[in-house]
Amino acid sequence: MSTFREDGAAAVEWVARYLEDVREYPVLSRVEPGAIRAALPPSPPEQAEPFAAVLRDLDEVLLPGMTHWQSPRYFAYFATTAAEPGILAELLIAGLNQVGILWRASPALQELEEVTLDWLRQLLGLPDPLHGHIEDTASSGLITALAAARAAVPDRRVVVCSEHTHSSTAKAARLLELEVRTTPVDAAFALRPDQLDLSDACAVVATVGTTSSTAVDPVTAIAERAAAAGAWLHVDAAYAGAAAVCPELRHHFAGWERADSIGVNPHKWLFTPMDCSAFFCRRPDDLRRAFSLVPEYLRVGEDVVSLSEYSSPLGRRFRALKLWATLRCFGREGLQSIIREHVRLAELFEQWVADEPGWELCAPRHFSLVCFRKAGSDEENEAIMQRANDGGEIFLSHTKLDGRLVLRLAIGNARTSEADVALAWDVLRRAAATV
Amino acid sequence: MSTFREDGAAAVEWVARYLEDVREYPVLSRVEPGAIRAALPPSPPEQAEPFAAVLRDLDEVLLPGMTHWQSPRYFAYFATTAAEPGILAELLIAGLNQVGILWRASPALQELEEVTLDWLRQLLGLPDPLHGHIEDTASSGLITALAAARAAVPDRRVVVCSEHTHSSTAKAARLLELEVRTTPVDAAFALRPDQLDLSDACAVVATVGTTSSTAVDPVTAIAERAAAAGAWLHVDAAYAGAAAVCPELRHHFAGWERADSIGVNPHKWLFTPMDCSAFFCRRPDDLRRAFSLVPEYLRVGEDVVSLSEYSSPLGRRFRALKLWATLRCFGREGLQSIIREHVRLAELFEQWVADEPGWELCAPRHFSLVCFRKAGSDEENEAIMQRANDGGEIFLSHTKLDGRLVLRLAIGNARTSEADVALAWDVLRRAAATV
Repeated sequence: MSTFREDGAAAVEWVARYLEDVREYPVLSRVEPGAIRAALPPSPPEQAEPFAAVLRDLDEVLLPGMTHWQSPRYFAYFATTAAEPGILAELLIAGLNQVGILWRASPALQELEEVTLDWLRQLLGLPDPLHGHIEDTASSGLITALAAARAAVPDRRVVVCSEHTHSSTAKAARLLELEVRTTPVDAAFALRPDQLDLSDACAVVATVGTTSSTAVDPVTAIAERAAAAGAWLHVDAAYAGAAAVCPELRHHFAGWERADSIGVNPHKWLFTPMDCSAFFCRRPDDLRRAFSLVPEYLRVGEDVVSLSEYSSPLGRRFRALKLWATLRCFGREGLQSIIREHVRLAELFEQWVADEPGWELCAPRHFSLVCFRKAGSDEENEAIMQRANDGGEIFLSHTKLDGRLVLRLAIGNARTSEADVALAWDVLRRAAATV
Repeated sequence: MSTFREDGAAAVEWVARYLEDVREYPVLSRVEPGAIRAALPPSPPEQAEPFAAVLRDLDEVLLPGMTHWQSPRYFAYFATTAAEPGILAELLIAGLNQVGILWRASPALQELEEVTLDWLRQLLGLPDPLHGHIEDTASSGLITALAAARAAVPDRRVVVCSEHTHSSTAKAARLLELEVRTTPVDAAFALRPDQLDLSDACAVVATVGTTSSTAVDPVTAIAERAAAAGAWLHVDAAYAGAAAVCPELRHHFAGWERADSIGVNPHKWLFTPMDCSAFFCRRPDDLRRAFSLVPEYLRVGEDVVSLSEYSSPLGRRFRALKLWATLRCFGREGLQSIIREHVRLAELFEQWVADEPGWELCAPRHFSLVCFRKAGSDEENEAIMQRANDGGEIFLSHTKLDGRLVLRLAIGNARTSEADVALAWDVLRRAAATV
């Protein structure tokens, strides 16, 4: 173990320095496709190499090929943070190597997952009782939800959602051979309940905080329709769900307590490392009907339902440990203060755009994402984005709203400061001046 | 970062001591259902707690609720190891928090995954070229394979496998609404190719190393039938695949190079922490046909296929880093020597059973699993197993073969010594003497 202690100290030091320095790296990787592959040996080594060689190649070969999701100047897609408690928890998770194939294979894994999801339920203001478990990603959670819906409403094969629902719904529906029907959105990019037809739907997916613009579908109205039609309601709050930790933001979530299932990703805006997607369900028996299958070699005496009976994978990592560590080391107040600061910074940026002639806001800002563009063509805006990203100081991404290319500034990294957001605005205006 | 450095040092020390002491812990957790839950606070903290509190509760609350998969005296299901390189790589993975939603989101993640899977392909003696990517578990790999098969052979809905195929095939088939038809096995629990009917099959699953007894289905004969019938052949080598690193064991894998897809779990017998399941495929275009869906906000200029187009999840962790670190820090020779030692220990145990009056072997031993029982009733054997497990010195599990309860001794932990195996045999004979 002396080698492990030395290598461990070096690995901790590597991560500490990385987090200290990450603000200075070009945020979006600049390598050409194939460059990293070409820099790696084509074959595995015959003899053992020291772990120090891995750390060396991490610096020399791999780092240039990374887009720095940990950078406080990362504003693309949805910005995330792997905060310190979760990073160290991953070390413990791997050291313990619990494999939760059934309860007795790790009672601590299963019961900590149940307790931690219940803590999260309380933090989000969701009703009690509510089944909760962890999926790898929201994509898998959609598969779980729609498979349960298909089993619960076996005579219908239609999933209804809005045009702005995340592509994971379409991907899950394809896997499950369900048909997706999209409902038009209003001027704020939220699903129009007056256009909702659930008569032949087994499920409807409502989103609180769409990926494009963080639009909020009217969940209460949708829940009423779903209940009347006997359709399963899944609420996708993968990004925005974390905001429900703050009471003043909870009004956006009105009605989600009536959902059959809900997805919230702590790996998005709750400072937990990839991967950790929380899945809540009011109808766990329907999950088991869709997924439970216990072979002989896993039959044991205990009268306990194992978590593997609620979704696809048999084996599960001890992911609960990192979420638990994160919730404890931040506490409710710690989580609230970072989320509030992100919302404040987004409001600030929104105001800067609103005050600047020649720029415009393109969607209501509900959380910490601002959608905006320079008055002008899509090509101009794309050029501005590319120039801004190529400079390496920041990274932001785009979407299409009302057929126009729109820039997105997503604030969500725990280390992002007002100076970082000001830099982003400065970079964008400079880029615009040269286009 | 000074707190992170201190907490990191404590976490590394915690893992080092855990690995030093783990042999002495009761292998199977002794807690009653609900005991861990009851020992945890029912609500999350309001204020932040120090990381030291997490480590303290890991010792005081959670450790008794763990079944020690890292113990050298763990012989249940399939024994696994999270070895040191992979443990430390998980720290780095979390520190970097790469999220591989598409190539540009982390070129290093994608290209290292491609290169590392190609290294693994070479180590296993599989043909070039072969698409490879990492799934979380073999269960997910089965979904990927059968979804591709369903898309490639759209007019058929039957999946054929043996009675001893892992339950993940049935679970994946249920999700995909495919019908499973099982084929009888021979005296060695291998699929009987003379009983194989693939005329209406979209896929056939052959196993090299079944979960019950590590039986080896005749892949060459199955591959011929599959090719003639136009059915997709998936080879499940989740556990045994690692053995192909040793040339003298490779004969068990004859014909797998003709498979359309293959699953091998480095988190089972290749010393990599959960989760890391390798998925190889000769027909990657069929994977993309089943799974590729690129929404507007992920459309970028580069002409690169992202790994998310080959299976369900959009986001992916930097899992490749832990497999890469493991392959490098062991090297081909290091991997071979541990696998060979495990096979030697299994042979030894097999011989002890064969030489002991009143005990019998119940299946051919191909790799590092021994199936055996005491001559007598199922109840007696179950009592022997329970007494052995209750003592805490070892943990082993059971299966049913030919309708009888059979004990399984699975050797697969990198730290297991001959003394540990001798102890297991001693514990079992002592337990038998008191039943």
